[in-house]
Amino acid sequence: MRAVVKLGGALFKRDLDTVALRKIAGALSDFATQGNQLVLVAGGGQNARAYIVAARKLGADESTCDLIGIKLTRANAELLRIALGSTAVSKIPTNLSEVSHLAGNGKVVVLGGLQPGQSTNAVAALAAEITKADVLVNATDVEGVYTQDPKKSPKAKLIRSVHVDKLLNWAMAGEVFAGRYELLDPLALKILQRARIPTRFVSLVDPGNIIEALHGKVVGTRVVY
Amino acid sequence: MRAVVKLGGALFKRDLDTVALRKIAGALSDFATQGNQLVLVAGGGQNARAYIVAARKLGADESTCDLIGIKLTRANAELLRIALGSTAVSKIPTNLSEVSHLAGNGKVVVLGGLQPGQSTNAVAALAAEITKADVLVNATDVEGVYTQDPKKSPKAKLIRSVHVDKLLNWAMAGEVFAGRYELLDPLALKILQRARIPTRFVSLVDPGNIIEALHGKVVGTRVVY
Amino acid sequence: MRAVVKLGGALFKRDLDTVALRKIAGALSDFATQGNQLVLVAGGGQNARAYIVAARKLGADESTCDLIGIKLTRANAELLRIALGSTAVSKIPTNLSEVSHLAGNGKVVVLGGLQPGQSTNAVAALAAEITKADVLVNATDVEGVYTQDPKKSPKAKLIRSVHVDKLLNWAMAGEVFAGRYELLDPLALKILQRARIPTRFVSLVDPGNIIEALHGKVVGTRVVY
Amino acid sequence: MRAVVKLGGALFKRDLDTVALRKIAGALSDFATQGNQLVLVAGGGQNARAYIVAARKLGADESTCDLIGIKLTRANAELLRIALGSTAVSKIPTNLSEVSHLAGNGKVVVLGGLQPGQSTNAVAALAAEITKADVLVNATDVEGVYTQDPKKSPKAKLIRSVHVDKLLNWAMAGEVFAGRYELLDPLALKILQRARIPTRFVSLVDPGNIIEALHGKVVGTRVVY
Amino acid sequence: MRAVVKLGGALFKRDLDTVALRKIAGALSDFATQGNQLVLVAGGGQNARAYIVAARKLGADESTCDLIGIKLTRANAELLRIALGSTAVSKIPTNLSEVSHLAGNGKVVVLGGLQPGQSTNAVAALAAEITKADVLVNATDVEGVYTQDPKKSPKAKLIRSVHVDKLLNWAMAGEVFAGRYELLDPLALKILQRARIPTRFVSLVDPGNIIEALHGKVVGTRVVY
Amino acid sequence: MRAVVKLGGALFKRDLDTVALRKIAGALSDFATQGNQLVLVAGGGQNARAYIVAARKLGADESTCDLIGIKLTRANAELLRIALGSTAVSKIPTNLSEVSHLAGNGKVVVLGGLQPGQSTNAVAALAAEITKADVLVNATDVEGVYTQDPKKSPKAKLIRSVHVDKLLNWAMAGEVFAGRYELLDPLALKILQRARIPTRFVSLVDPGNIIEALHGKVVGTRVVY
Repeated sequence: MRAVVKLGGALFKRDLDTVALRKIAGALSDFATQGNQLVLVAGGGQNARAYIVAARKLGADESTCDLIGIKLTRANAELLRIALGSTAVSKIPTNLSEVSHLAGNGKVVVLGGLQPGQSTNAVAALAAEITKADVLVNATDVEGVYTQDPKKSPKAKLIRSVHVDKLLNWAMAGEVFAGRYELLDPLALKILQRARIPTRFVSLVDPGNIIEALHGKVVGTRVVY
Repeated sequence: MRAVVKLGGALFKRDLDTVALRKIAGALSDFATQGNQLVLVAGGGQNARAYIVAARKLGADESTCDLIGIKLTRANAELLRIALGSTAVSKIPTNLSEVSHLAGNGKVVVLGGLQPGQSTNAVAALAAEITKADVLVNATDVEGVYTQDPKKSPKAKLIRSVHVDKLLNWAMAGEVFAGRYELLDPLALKILQRARIPTRFVSLVDPGNIIEALHGKVVGTRVVY
Repeated sequence: MRAVVKLGGALFKRDLDTVALRKIAGALSDFATQGNQLVLVAGGGQNARAYIVAARKLGADESTCDLIGIKLTRANAELLRIALGSTAVSKIPTNLSEVSHLAGNGKVVVLGGLQPGQSTNAVAALAAEITKADVLVNATDVEGVYTQDPKKSPKAKLIRSVHVDKLLNWAMAGEVFAGRYELLDPLALKILQRARIPTRFVSLVDPGNIIEALHGKVVGTRVVY
Repeated sequence: MRAVVKLGGALFKRDLDTVALRKIAGALSDFATQGNQLVLVAGGGQNARAYIVAARKLGADESTCDLIGIKLTRANAELLRIALGSTAVSKIPTNLSEVSHLAGNGKVVVLGGLQPGQSTNAVAALAAEITKADVLVNATDVEGVYTQDPKKSPKAKLIRSVHVDKLLNWAMAGEVFAGRYELLDPLALKILQRARIPTRFVSLVDPGNIIEALHGKVVGTRVVY
Repeated sequence: MRAVVKLGGALFKRDLDTVALRKIAGALSDFATQGNQLVLVAGGGQNARAYIVAARKLGADESTCDLIGIKLTRANAELLRIALGSTAVSKIPTNLSEVSHLAGNGKVVVLGGLQPGQSTNAVAALAAEITKADVLVNATDVEGVYTQDPKKSPKAKLIRSVHVDKLLNWAMAGEVFAGRYELLDPLALKILQRARIPTRFVSLVDPGNIIEALHGKVVGTRVVY
Repeated sequence: MRAVVKLGGALFKRDLDTVALRKIAGALSDFATQGNQLVLVAGGGQNARAYIVAARKLGADESTCDLIGIKLTRANAELLRIALGSTAVSKIPTNLSEVSHLAGNGKVVVLGGLQPGQSTNAVAALAAEITKADVLVNATDVEGVYTQDPKKSPKAKLIRSVHVDKLLNWAMAGEVFAGRYELLDPLALKILQRARIPTRFVSLVDPGNIIEALHGKVVGTRVVY
């Protein structure tokens, strides 16, 4: 089985939580050693955001802010790679061709961002496409896609299954700027739409959810094409 | 003055038209030697499309199709660079940091595509953002943005000025796949939206239009923020 | 067994022929999966020639023409790599050390040109030398080396076996310029001469010929040392 | 005049202080635009330390901890580069040859760490050596070298001038591990010893100190050979 | 078992001794094919020294001298790699991440120097650390560490075991400049100290010594922590 | 004026002659600072030959021998670059595009070999072609092209002017293998033939000859087209 898992920035807290990293790495390492091809994409989180905010205050344009954010996602990827130990490829790819080149070697490939203008969600979608992934799991700090913002409204309900076109319509309401690429990133959704990759949004709080989603269990939100 | 010009794939015909290339290169070279910083982005055109179609027939995923298309846009960029002679930087940048690094040297920088998932329109928008361009001119085979498809409908009228949000809404109707990124590429528009770069869509048939657009003359379609 | 196959530009027609590409890729993929180490070198063909001609018209020197031709041979290599699917290394090497590094991994390595001043025939000879190939098969649109030009003269006879020195003498009559490196490229022949690589020139119209030549069958023209 | 300034990790606080960064960048930018060649080396600071500590907890060896620390020093260098605006080279060099290549172009070169096993103090010393710097200023959060730890002991006195051999003897008492390379880094001191670069340790709290040290004024601690 | 062997410059004589190279390569190749992970670091020797001396005479600073010395150590590494034949990775890594990336592939990795300011002894120590080596063998032209210079004094006695701190104290007496990094290189010792890698200094005259040291036999000088 | 000078391996003796290097560098530096664009190509010489012979004895194929020879020509180039001081670009290009990119910056570009299968004579011819050189001076340890071997026969007469076709005919008699690419290298001559670069063969014993040849004076052997 070939899979891509996007681990949202929420995993990489201001005070880096090595216990959580180790737990997730352990579960994913087990999955990989069962003969599955696995690519992990690390998001940015609070530290990335801190650098992006500082860069913006110092007068950087958004592309340059993206570049500095990418540096931090790669530091996050490095932590993940360390936590995976010898299960992971020791090199962090920096372009899509390398992802494709390294993914065939039987080890977990871990990466962060690639290029300005692409969120790590888009990177995960592209990585899923080029490695012909059977499944893409996008793990964030919420259970999936909700009817409303679950952190603000108690009435918010988890949506079990949603069409990619609907997600795209919602996505277009937002604004694209470094450090706030939303779960509903239009470019990522466009890639999903064209490649029709089976995708689930789940919570990363419990690594068990990610593993279940990888095995096609009903958990979080499923994207329908 | 700092400018980015996107030269659409229409300039790079199946039978490569060196007369047209020389004419456009001459006009842009004059503009650059008047003390203006200029970045040119070459599109794909029919040859790129032929390779992408063949790749797709052979079973390539869309990211890989993008990669092969990028190779052809770089061959197009090379032709443009040759036509510009010693006015142009002899190196074709392959990532955004290089664009920014080379653009400050007083010579024209010419590039093609950068990464899968990004049309050359998006590349032009990112290049404009990171080089802090005063203007982005997007030259295609039509006069600008129309109310209808000008090649199909005689009633189609050129729109003189359009809000970026409107363009984005229209863009979302299309599908993103290699070789058919439209004039209305959502990612490119998102970048324009965040960077508020003064942008005009003009025809590349007459190089004079491009030069006029660079000088802020009323020509083609202007994007409003 | 270790082999290098040069696939002449004739395989990469103006209108890219995916049926022919798939057929050749299938035969070569079978050969490779029987435990043989295989390196493929893609030539230029009509599309490469079109770009080279345009570059020359725009005033490029021959080294720059070579560089643009190399870009197109790499696009051809990419098509071949796609047609081979998972049998092929996903990375296209761009220097000889990489060829040697990748060739030992059990997958087919596909490449195009490497450097100005070297035809893809010379690249194939160098690749054969550095990978210690047991055989080099050079497949073009004719059956092998003839007494006269087989496309012009009906009296032309196929030569079954020819000494490398004779080929070199013939080769020196021609001129070396981008896009017209002949079957009888002096540098390629010099490399064959020094490395004494068992070599056959065969037709690429029937993939069966290539496979027979790989297995040492009597087909096309054999080079004698 | 050719100078190298090492800006200690103290400049890059947990909560990135863009006011301080802007102030230092302004002073150094003025210095550079007076016709001086300037190379800046950014240290790690608290954010680098946080990533290094996390990496170590996850089981990374010290070389890998160094690698992740280097990523963060480069993010710091990027902030500095942004604060300098067009006065700085837009590329952050990643090896010593690049430093030497970029330093001759009339713009400020900014870098972070280069290789595991080398503190950014050693990088600054090497950069000073290879760019034939007239002066190296090492700016930290204390006024210079003291008789005792100035943060712990009120009796600590600033030493105005000290022989490099004495510094080396003191340095050998410490331990070398990622994130705690002290002001008295043995490798850095060895490089100073061999290249006899005029060096001063000053405080980075007041940018005026750095500028005075660059102009050879009596401030902080001077290294004697 | 995971091992790093540093082969001192003495192996790479002015008149390159291919018999000695072949003998050592044979012994190390046998060790590797018994399922051991092996990284070899080639030193400089007389040819490196000749280039460094010439560079210094021509006015080069010590960092540039280091750079030219590194080029020669890489030529030495190439010879070693050739002598190892197909047992060795065909690529010579040029940074520490590559060492770590290549070391896991079941073939011997051979390298020379990496960066100015680091002797090949330091490189060997860093390589041992990042590949989590069980043992580091440092082979030179003497039997190990002596009480006095064994080439000058007949009273010199081999020390069987010595604490790393003692070595460090001795090392600090010397001077660090290109081509004379001693057996007792402070940076290398600092790395050993922090990583506590089981290390032996042995003679490279008899390859048998190196193999015995790899297997933990009592030979040469052992470093104690 | 744009010029390329090939400095033959004879300049890089077994015992590196820094006096000769400094003398030639001084003369060429003067030439360059008079507003001329200059590219220098360093040959191999005895040290390169020693490494190539050792590699061949250890079983390397000729392409690998070329690779090791190229490493040594780059060390030679580095010495030359150091002798030129700040007149030279600090980066040694490793492919032809870089040569072309660096040559336009007003400093002397120094390089060694580029790729297996190409002698440094061919590199010089390609560099002359891609930088549109007005003149190529090929300096060796003899005065030019002779009727017989001037080192063996006292009757040997210097030929003042010779047609490229005649040189090519002579060249084809020789054999191409690493370290013995002769003055009459067929590939180099083919490049000269196609690019019609005004070329002179002169002695490098007296730098004055090289400077005279650069200024078009009658010295050594002139190649006629």
